[in-house]
Amino acid sequence: MRPPTIRDVAERAGVSKSLVSLVLRGSGQVRPEKREAVLRAARELGYRPNAAARSLSEQRTLPQALGSARAGGTPMVGVLLDDLRNPWFVDLLDGLNSLLHAGGLRMLLADARLSRRTGQDPADPLLDLGVDGLVVVGTLPEPAALGTVADRMPVVLAGTREPVPPGVDQVAGDDERGARLVTEHLIGLGHRRIAHLAGYGAVGELRRRSFEAAMRERGLADRAVVETGDMTEEGGYRAAVRLLSRPDRPTAVFAVNDITCVGALSAAGELGLRVPHDVSVVGYDNTSISRLRHLWLTTVDNAGHEVGRRAARFLLDRFERAGGEGRLHLAAPTLEIRGTTAPPS
Amino acid sequence: MRPPTIRDVAERAGVSKSLVSLVLRGSGQVRPEKREAVLRAARELGYRPNAAARSLSEQRTLPQALGSARAGGTPMVGVLLDDLRNPWFVDLLDGLNSLLHAGGLRMLLADARLSRRTGQDPADPLLDLGVDGLVVVGTLPEPAALGTVADRMPVVLAGTREPVPPGVDQVAGDDERGARLVTEHLIGLGHRRIAHLAGYGAVGELRRRSFEAAMRERGLADRAVVETGDMTEEGGYRAAVRLLSRPDRPTAVFAVNDITCVGALSAAGELGLRVPHDVSVVGYDNTSISRLRHLWLTTVDNAGHEVGRRAARFLLDRFERAGGEGRLHLAAPTLEIRGTTAPPS
Repeated sequence: MRPPTIRDVAERAGVSKSLVSLVLRGSGQVRPEKREAVLRAARELGYRPNAAARSLSEQRTLPQALGSARAGGTPMVGVLLDDLRNPWFVDLLDGLNSLLHAGGLRMLLADARLSRRTGQDPADPLLDLGVDGLVVVGTLPEPAALGTVADRMPVVLAGTREPVPPGVDQVAGDDERGARLVTEHLIGLGHRRIAHLAGYGAVGELRRRSFEAAMRERGLADRAVVETGDMTEEGGYRAAVRLLSRPDRPTAVFAVNDITCVGALSAAGELGLRVPHDVSVVGYDNTSISRLRHLWLTTVDNAGHEVGRRAARFLLDRFERAGGEGRLHLAAPTLEIRGTTAPPS
Repeated sequence: MRPPTIRDVAERAGVSKSLVSLVLRGSGQVRPEKREAVLRAARELGYRPNAAARSLSEQRTLPQALGSARAGGTPMVGVLLDDLRNPWFVDLLDGLNSLLHAGGLRMLLADARLSRRTGQDPADPLLDLGVDGLVVVGTLPEPAALGTVADRMPVVLAGTREPVPPGVDQVAGDDERGARLVTEHLIGLGHRRIAHLAGYGAVGELRRRSFEAAMRERGLADRAVVETGDMTEEGGYRAAVRLLSRPDRPTAVFAVNDITCVGALSAAGELGLRVPHDVSVVGYDNTSISRLRHLWLTTVDNAGHEVGRRAARFLLDRFERAGGEGRLHLAAPTLEIRGTTAPPS
């Protein structure tokens, strides 16, 4: 019995070989019925994409040693998530998974918040298992610690902009561009007194500075207000209550993330202000919360899928050619205009 | 240099040994400053809880072989999550992690949805790595497949009520009791025409049947309405639009989960009905979404932390004594009365 090939899968599913290939790469371009048929055929035949064959067909060679230290022999990537409670990283994981899978790699996750609660080093469970590479998703308290890991295996930081040790790649949304999109959208609607509910860390800093720069360029520096929150709903609520109770109340509020924006929405409601009639609010991250019909926040889509795919690409590159300087890729964000922004009344 | 002991950690943190022990077990009874001080001291000293010592002190002995097959030698539990996009399992993971950590075990996660998208068997990455036990969190499409895994290692199904193969333990919230709490709360407020937005699977079935039984017992069988949704916001919205447009509109809606309830909230809003003045709505799961101040849903807390701890307990038991019949533990849910329920107007 020879193992099933991609041709067998295509025949059984009644589609072309290139379509099978597209599906197995996790492409979003394939119709659901076709995708389902291909996956079913692959399952029924017990077809497994072969990392070596796949990388040859892409003119890449994964080091043969990869994954060989472990029982299964499958190359494995560890993904460290900052906090499962806020699922901002779902699209990023989708993108990451699709490309890693196409490269014949598997993905395991660890939750950094849970590890910290019990005083463990978050990356330890993954490293103990001998993963072949590490993707860190979101802000880490001590990114410098990744330096020693990066000496042993490829490390990519995704979805955040913290300073990284040498040799670590970084992929994130372009926060400066995103914050500028929001600020210009609000100014374009006619808003002048605009507030920013700021956050912390490199991401918080970039978004705030870009907001201030965009206001300054339009001659609105003296109409810009910044209140600092803690990137939680409660913090957003409290900062927004302060802001919206001022005599010179802003007519628009740009929050550093969606969850802060939801806090601002509640503050507006409690103060009897209608959104967007009396005050416009904007979030950031295009999380599932922002898409709830009941909230329907205008927000920034951080191109999470692209960030994830690019992180996977960087990792696969490093499997081929270890060493070299760390690279930075910024994905272009887009504005999602929904129900919480309108011209000032 | 002898390795640091729990006494060293206690001295450095300026607390008692038993407090250190409490913190390392993930107890919620410790003040945050104390917890922080203990974890800092443990980190600075490089203290690592010792599985053997810890289990001795608890009069348990983890099989010495556990984890010995791997490089690090640390026993490892794989946790398979059904869908990271809906973080209903956060408390469950917290509970699971606290007890596993106290037992000297580490925890790695895999996302079943991502695996299915690329046609992989969701448990494979964990099994390939040679985890020592498996916790499956949430509904799996083919729970029967766990039977072969359970022949090789302890398997616990947590947070769901699907039929399980022999030898697999199961821990979940008591859905019948939870649905009864909701129904009796609504009847107690004076509601008579009560609708249920039902879901699917074992959990959906148990909640619906318990709602119907509670209505029947109060002589309200003919006032009970059931609409079936798909456990998504969109499904909840559409079902609620149908329900709330009826001439004999129900005065209260009990949704199978929080996200469905949020859909119902939007439907009420679009139909010009105020919540809870014109219609009461109740969710299920006490997710972070239900706690958003802007939504503030009355909902059922599924005792997730207890479910997680009990799942860990079952797993640790099976490490000691392999084999034996599968056990079932149901945790008692509680009702969280918030802003979306009131007497009918």
